[in-house]
Amino acid sequence: MGRTRSEPETDAARYAYDGLDRVLHEKARLGILTSLLSNPDGLAFNDLKSLCALTDGNLSRHLRVLEEEGLLMVEKGFDGRKPKTHCRMTALGRQRFLAYLEVLERVVRDALTARRERSAVKARKGNPDGSWAPAT
Amino acid sequence: MGRTRSEPETDAARYAYDGLDRVLHEKARLGILTSLLSNPDGLAFNDLKSLCALTDGNLSRHLRVLEEEGLLMVEKGFDGRKPKTHCRMTALGRQRFLAYLEVLERVVRDALTARRERSAVKARKGNPDGSWAPAT
Repeated sequence: MGRTRSEPETDAARYAYDGLDRVLHEKARLGILTSLLSNPDGLAFNDLKSLCALTDGNLSRHLRVLEEEGLLMVEKGFDGRKPKTHCRMTALGRQRFLAYLEVLERVVRDALTARRERSAVKARKGNPDGSWAPAT
Repeated sequence: MGRTRSEPETDAARYAYDGLDRVLHEKARLGILTSLLSNPDGLAFNDLKSLCALTDGNLSRHLRVLEEEGLLMVEKGFDGRKPKTHCRMTALGRQRFLAYLEVLERVVRDALTARRERSAVKARKGNPDGSWAPAT
């Protein structure tokens, strides 16, 4: 135990990732926002449901959260006599999602850098596998 | 409303991101796992607390979840007469975290591709700003 084998990197809050906005950092909502970013004219409720593989109830719940935050607009209308719900990202939604994505990119970059450095250290130590497992 | 302006991309489950493992897809746990991936010899509880900017209680709670899943090992020992807790990622933890990171990379890639395509379309339409906002 201790710091005998290598000096740990311990800069305060180095991995705090404060920018991982909790409203956006949710699996289903990430799917919804990416779908809407990909479809600037918006998407019908049913298309969004299919793209994100969500149930009616789940999609409605997440849309409500995102709409309350001003990240998207939900417009209710008619297609002939059939009710139709259309969703579209707002400028604020786009801005917050892109800021969130920058932090997400940093997480991926940090972790992949860590993996590369670790592989290099292990290769120098003659353990090219690099894995660690408890003795059983 | 409808699909008059552009054909939406609606492949079933295209943005479902099933691989976003809920155990790992949590802001604090992402920080903990990235810290441990960066420090293959493990980290003392206090170093981890500082790196991730977490309270004792929060860090303990997240460590317990990750330990129960077999993703890390928590070893309790002594540094002289002072109790010391040391955390280290397991081989399974490394494997699951790297698999999760692949999906995270896909989210970032999908979203940034969407942004680029959107900018290109808007430029062709003569709206280089590319933003959309509701009329107020």
